Amino acid sequence: MTIEKPPISARTPSRGKWFTELHSPGAGFTVRVKKTLFSGKSPFQDVAVFDTEDYGHMLVLDGAVQTTERDEFVYHEMLVHVPLCAHPKPRRVLIVGGGDGGCVREALRHPEVERVTLVEIDQMVVDCSRKFFPTIAGKLDDPRVEVRIEDGVKFVKKHERAFDVIIVDSTDPVNMASPLTRATFFRAAKEALAPGGLYACQSQGPLFEMKGMRRIARTIRKVFPNASHYLANIPTYPGGVWSFALAGKSGKSTASIVPRPLPKGIRTHYYTTGLHRASFHLPRYVEEIVR
Amino acid sequence: MTIEKPPISARTPSRGKWFTELHSPGAGFTVRVKKTLFSGKSPFQDVAVFDTEDYGHMLVLDGAVQTTERDEFVYHEMLVHVPLCAHPKPRRVLIVGGGDGGCVREALRHPEVERVTLVEIDQMVVDCSRKFFPTIAGKLDDPRVEVRIEDGVKFVKKHERAFDVIIVDSTDPVNMASPLTRATFFRAAKEALAPGGLYACQSQGPLFEMKGMRRIARTIRKVFPNASHYLANIPTYPGGVWSFALAGKSGKSTASIVPRPLPKGIRTHYYTTGLHRASFHLPRYVEEIVR
Repeated sequence: MTIEKPPISARTPSRGKWFTELHSPGAGFTVRVKKTLFSGKSPFQDVAVFDTEDYGHMLVLDGAVQTTERDEFVYHEMLVHVPLCAHPKPRRVLIVGGGDGGCVREALRHPEVERVTLVEIDQMVVDCSRKFFPTIAGKLDDPRVEVRIEDGVKFVKKHERAFDVIIVDSTDPVNMASPLTRATFFRAAKEALAPGGLYACQSQGPLFEMKGMRRIARTIRKVFPNASHYLANIPTYPGGVWSFALAGKSGKSTASIVPRPLPKGIRTHYYTTGLHRASFHLPRYVEEIVR
Repeated sequence: MTIEKPPISARTPSRGKWFTELHSPGAGFTVRVKKTLFSGKSPFQDVAVFDTEDYGHMLVLDGAVQTTERDEFVYHEMLVHVPLCAHPKPRRVLIVGGGDGGCVREALRHPEVERVTLVEIDQMVVDCSRKFFPTIAGKLDDPRVEVRIEDGVKFVKKHERAFDVIIVDSTDPVNMASPLTRATFFRAAKEALAPGGLYACQSQGPLFEMKGMRRIARTIRKVFPNASHYLANIPTYPGGVWSFALAGKSGKSTASIVPRPLPKGIRTHYYTTGLHRASFHLPRYVEEIVR
């Protein structure tokens, strides 16, 4: 991870060190780094934690921003509350990846949830999150949570009808996360779901990861009778927009499920019941990607 | 306008010159510039046109990206088709600002539109667009279009019940665009609308221009009985998301207007009838800004 010279702006005098993630060879996102809190290499990836001026603490894996204190609420709320509110009674939740703990935190806000199993392959991500992202990882020690450091693909293959909701919160489908977007995994996940179960995953960005998104969309629809995509605006992700997939074991379109209202007392910053269904209405160019 | 050293990325070796727009002192958007096509100073603002690798030609005013060949479709379709499809018969359309011609182009795609008046204060923007953005400015010479280079505020004050739809496509409300977000202007625009008329404007971004957005939302609601906001994802704008306001002369909520279907043969890349209504469902934190 290199952080170096400041970018040049016509508006603001710049100083200090900057981290830039290029989303393509010719465009990217740049952020001022107050301090590098951690930089390491796990068996799976480069792991860095920056303290940034605008986004608070920022987790960067293999050079790609994964989560920041300021905007993590969008990703975690939309990846969790959409499947959990779409399911009539989500008691057992499996989260594959998501070692930062953000999905665990959101899932536990639903009183129906009795047990959350988190299967993260990389211990270093969990350790970094516990240390540098306490507001995100803070529920990993809840008694309803089981944290397992192991390969999510192997874990899922060993289970049958065991979960009401499976959420895959993975990095980009390159290297170790790549098997999580293959048909064999989707089939195993379908088997691991109880009847009426729902499967949700991040499905890449429509602007800079169009091919990856199309591939996920086509593969998932080969396995699940119904899979629909929805979008959310995440400022630190490429192009500021990210897609998710919601797939069901039943034949019912997941886009047209009327969501249960959020349990009383849950206060969200992004998700609303109205936005739940609205977020499945895709811009034309995104419709064309997932067609 | 300064373009200088490349940003540093862990992923891609960088070369060439880069333009960076900081959206705050600590975060921004950076893009590789193949060539500076134009750089000038009008009586109103700094004007630059870059040829960029990822976004094609890019218009930059006072250091802020206004439009790019690659993603202009989002802004122009959403700023134009939402009011035009919400109006039962939009015959006379006024566009204030929008000297690039993108709103004119989209408005003319509606066969109901008989006349489009474009009132842009800055000749240099129109000239640059004609020269460097032919796909955007290409309809400025259509016989249904009148282009006037003058102050939009003064122009609007001289008209009464003259337009079915008024669209304000302005730069950020600083300097010359500032009067376009004041109550006196909104009142004049309301008078300039025919009965049943609709007013649409860009209303800043919810992430980095939160105060500006809140101010516009409160001011517009003081004047128009009903104003609602909607969002679209624009990758080159701060945080990748931008807001628009739709206000009506009648008491009917503009968010709940059932849009007319797009005229036959209009092929959009972003706007769809489903997305029209969905885009008024705001994330919770945006609801709180405009409340």
